[in-house]
Amino acid sequence: MNRQKKKSTNGFRWERKHLLGIAELSTEELALLLDQAENFREVMDRPIPKVPALRGKTIVNLFCEPSTRTRTSFELAAKRLSADTLSIATSSSSFIKGESLKDTARNIEAMQIDMLIIRHSTPGAPKFLSECIKASVVNAGDGSHEHPTQALLDVFTIRRKLKKIVGLNVSIVGDIAHSRVAKSNIFALKKLGAEVTVCGPKTMMPSGIESLGVKVTYDLKEALKGADAVNVLRIQAERQNQTFFPGIREYARMFGITKEKLNKYAKKEILLLHPGPINRGVELSQDAADGEFSVILDQVTNGVAVRMAVLFLLSGIK
Amino acid sequence: MNRQKKKSTNGFRWERKHLLGIAELSTEELALLLDQAENFREVMDRPIPKVPALRGKTIVNLFCEPSTRTRTSFELAAKRLSADTLSIATSSSSFIKGESLKDTARNIEAMQIDMLIIRHSTPGAPKFLSECIKASVVNAGDGSHEHPTQALLDVFTIRRKLKKIVGLNVSIVGDIAHSRVAKSNIFALKKLGAEVTVCGPKTMMPSGIESLGVKVTYDLKEALKGADAVNVLRIQAERQNQTFFPGIREYARMFGITKEKLNKYAKKEILLLHPGPINRGVELSQDAADGEFSVILDQVTNGVAVRMAVLFLLSGIK
Amino acid sequence: MNRQKKKSTNGFRWERKHLLGIAELSTEELALLLDQAENFREVMDRPIPKVPALRGKTIVNLFCEPSTRTRTSFELAAKRLSADTLSIATSSSSFIKGESLKDTARNIEAMQIDMLIIRHSTPGAPKFLSECIKASVVNAGDGSHEHPTQALLDVFTIRRKLKKIVGLNVSIVGDIAHSRVAKSNIFALKKLGAEVTVCGPKTMMPSGIESLGVKVTYDLKEALKGADAVNVLRIQAERQNQTFFPGIREYARMFGITKEKLNKYAKKEILLLHPGPINRGVELSQDAADGEFSVILDQVTNGVAVRMAVLFLLSGIK
Repeated sequence: MNRQKKKSTNGFRWERKHLLGIAELSTEELALLLDQAENFREVMDRPIPKVPALRGKTIVNLFCEPSTRTRTSFELAAKRLSADTLSIATSSSSFIKGESLKDTARNIEAMQIDMLIIRHSTPGAPKFLSECIKASVVNAGDGSHEHPTQALLDVFTIRRKLKKIVGLNVSIVGDIAHSRVAKSNIFALKKLGAEVTVCGPKTMMPSGIESLGVKVTYDLKEALKGADAVNVLRIQAERQNQTFFPGIREYARMFGITKEKLNKYAKKEILLLHPGPINRGVELSQDAADGEFSVILDQVTNGVAVRMAVLFLLSGIK
Repeated sequence: MNRQKKKSTNGFRWERKHLLGIAELSTEELALLLDQAENFREVMDRPIPKVPALRGKTIVNLFCEPSTRTRTSFELAAKRLSADTLSIATSSSSFIKGESLKDTARNIEAMQIDMLIIRHSTPGAPKFLSECIKASVVNAGDGSHEHPTQALLDVFTIRRKLKKIVGLNVSIVGDIAHSRVAKSNIFALKKLGAEVTVCGPKTMMPSGIESLGVKVTYDLKEALKGADAVNVLRIQAERQNQTFFPGIREYARMFGITKEKLNKYAKKEILLLHPGPINRGVELSQDAADGEFSVILDQVTNGVAVRMAVLFLLSGIK
Repeated sequence: MNRQKKKSTNGFRWERKHLLGIAELSTEELALLLDQAENFREVMDRPIPKVPALRGKTIVNLFCEPSTRTRTSFELAAKRLSADTLSIATSSSSFIKGESLKDTARNIEAMQIDMLIIRHSTPGAPKFLSECIKASVVNAGDGSHEHPTQALLDVFTIRRKLKKIVGLNVSIVGDIAHSRVAKSNIFALKKLGAEVTVCGPKTMMPSGIESLGVKVTYDLKEALKGADAVNVLRIQAERQNQTFFPGIREYARMFGITKEKLNKYAKKEILLLHPGPINRGVELSQDAADGEFSVILDQVTNGVAVRMAVLFLLSGIK
């Protein structure tokens, strides 16, 4: 798995140093990322699912918001590339105390680390860091801005199941306005040639979203009809204030996806995606989450392969 | 250290995939585990105490109760087998938030991990997980149910010192009713042919315990007399409610083990075990804990070897 | 990088097992440490900045005070020597609960670890541990006593920039009375032949400090004049009680170092050091911290090399 592999079959070569969002990626970059992820997905099925590609490299997870799922996935990806990993969580971090994010990052980098994976509540924090440090920066979720590796693993999962993205109808259901997952998915799917429909309550739909080239509907039936895949967003129930709480049941009734609704309105072979963790009984019923349509656990598996591809491609780019 | 080693000298071959408790182990399995642990105990004395047996395997520590001691021991065991390790503590875990234990485990497993070591306050949690995921599950303590690796290291320590278990008299002193350590020890010792006496206040003695084939006494003198080894349980002083607190001194007076009592009532070459951490001055006096009879630090050392044996034997079993 | 390298060019051989403070080191030991650190500093610039020197050794970070910066630096150093590392933070540690520091350390050691790096609020805690366990003990900061690796990286950074220590004028500015960094630096610099001036408010100056062979001044101008390097201590603003708070601005005005003051009073090629994290605008202005004189990020980089040298030299000493 050497540097030469960092180009696609048609000769396109990876040159990007940071992964900050899907918005700035070209279609060629997306395709190369997905192809590279496919290679690593095969590595993961080997008896020893490990390659020496990043031996001696140091990758730091700087998580300024709690996230075991994404952090664990990145850590595993790094280990399977034989990199050394360090995790820094804000809560236990004196780096942060009295120190700006920039100082923190520059100090971490001064230890001669190679990559910094950052999750932060402020949109743009990864981009800001990429401008003040020399290490590669990977955005693991920055506020409501982007969550590029989540979108990559979502499209990778769809492509792996349906063998293509071009021409597919993909619906995204939930709080579109506040979701970095929705945003990154829209960018990725549109660049790869899918038709995207977004669906959710009006209060969760950003105005002007149509300008991204998506169809908008407030009716779940519409979103399910003809969809090849539906990506169901997590309702951040714990973030809602109390006055919203009566709304959870109402949300489940109108936008919650159940096996019954899938059988009634959706194509037979629809794929059901969810970034996790699931609020069972809210945005997704038990029988839908664990049913035949669900590729939710595939997403988790593929997430490691996709993150291996990201770390591998970014490494060594000056 | 290859797969062939996974059978005993008399040809018995390890087939078990999960370690959930001592209760379900056969005598042959126990013996093979202890023999394998002996091999690894010798590895630990080498200049480089490491074998490549589990290279490329991923072992996850999922600790839903705090335990640095056991977690560290498992982590070290995994590292000395060259496995990759990931630790997930509940407190920092968004896996858990709004997600069932089953979802959590299935998500972790979907990252294609090989083993899940779990500590959980609910008895049966490891068994439940073993039924819904494909990875091997190791019980690192589940409520008041079992703590199998603790019992294994206890009997291993006794066997290493006294060269046998069959026919030995072993007493267990403390809160028998609420102790998973007591339970797992009783199972292991009885299966291996020891005579077991349990001793503690009546309020800490479960009714019907005799059905496990143990002798019961409420008199420490009785428990010490003729014992080859005494396993002293930790009094969970911090779990007692305030009305119990005057009882701590009384407990120490009646059941606390001191050098004086050992000299007075016990055999000369008695072994003193404790699972740690010790409440010095409560269940064990300073001079007893650090005295000539104590094998408490041997237990800690042996714990790593025993856990290496467990991880090694379970790995690769379908 | 074998054992033979553990002596200096003039044949002096490293024999010390623990690093507890700078006070007890000989000049030869200091010189060998710095030379060894220079070797590892060069390793850090290699494409794969890793040596197999401590393969199979287990190094435990036991941090009983929060410190991501120092812990991360030690962890990286250990990983670049190919050692296995374990981190134990007090907050999450049941080792500590109801257990003395001695019990904790002896239990960790019983797992057959090779080195224990400890940060503790009690002066002398590392020395105490070194007397009750067999593993090597490294002091990563013990209350107001010493912080030897910080001083080593400080003098290493100065030596690397100015090619010598002998005869240099080095000033230390800040809360001299409560600073382990100041103390360790004074010891290291004096042993290596520098002239040391300490500077700070009278309330932060310990009486009798002159007996260590340092000059004392309460005037920053004096401390800057003729200094080849100035080591600026962090003001522990968060530790001050409220009645002191009006004093922060006053402190900044009188002892805070700005580019303007450096231009006005200091030599042109003065080095500016700070152990981090910086209170920008208090002990150091923005333009000074990021200015041409600052070697603060070099300190962070060099810290890893210095800690690699410490771990390497101590390892294997009986």
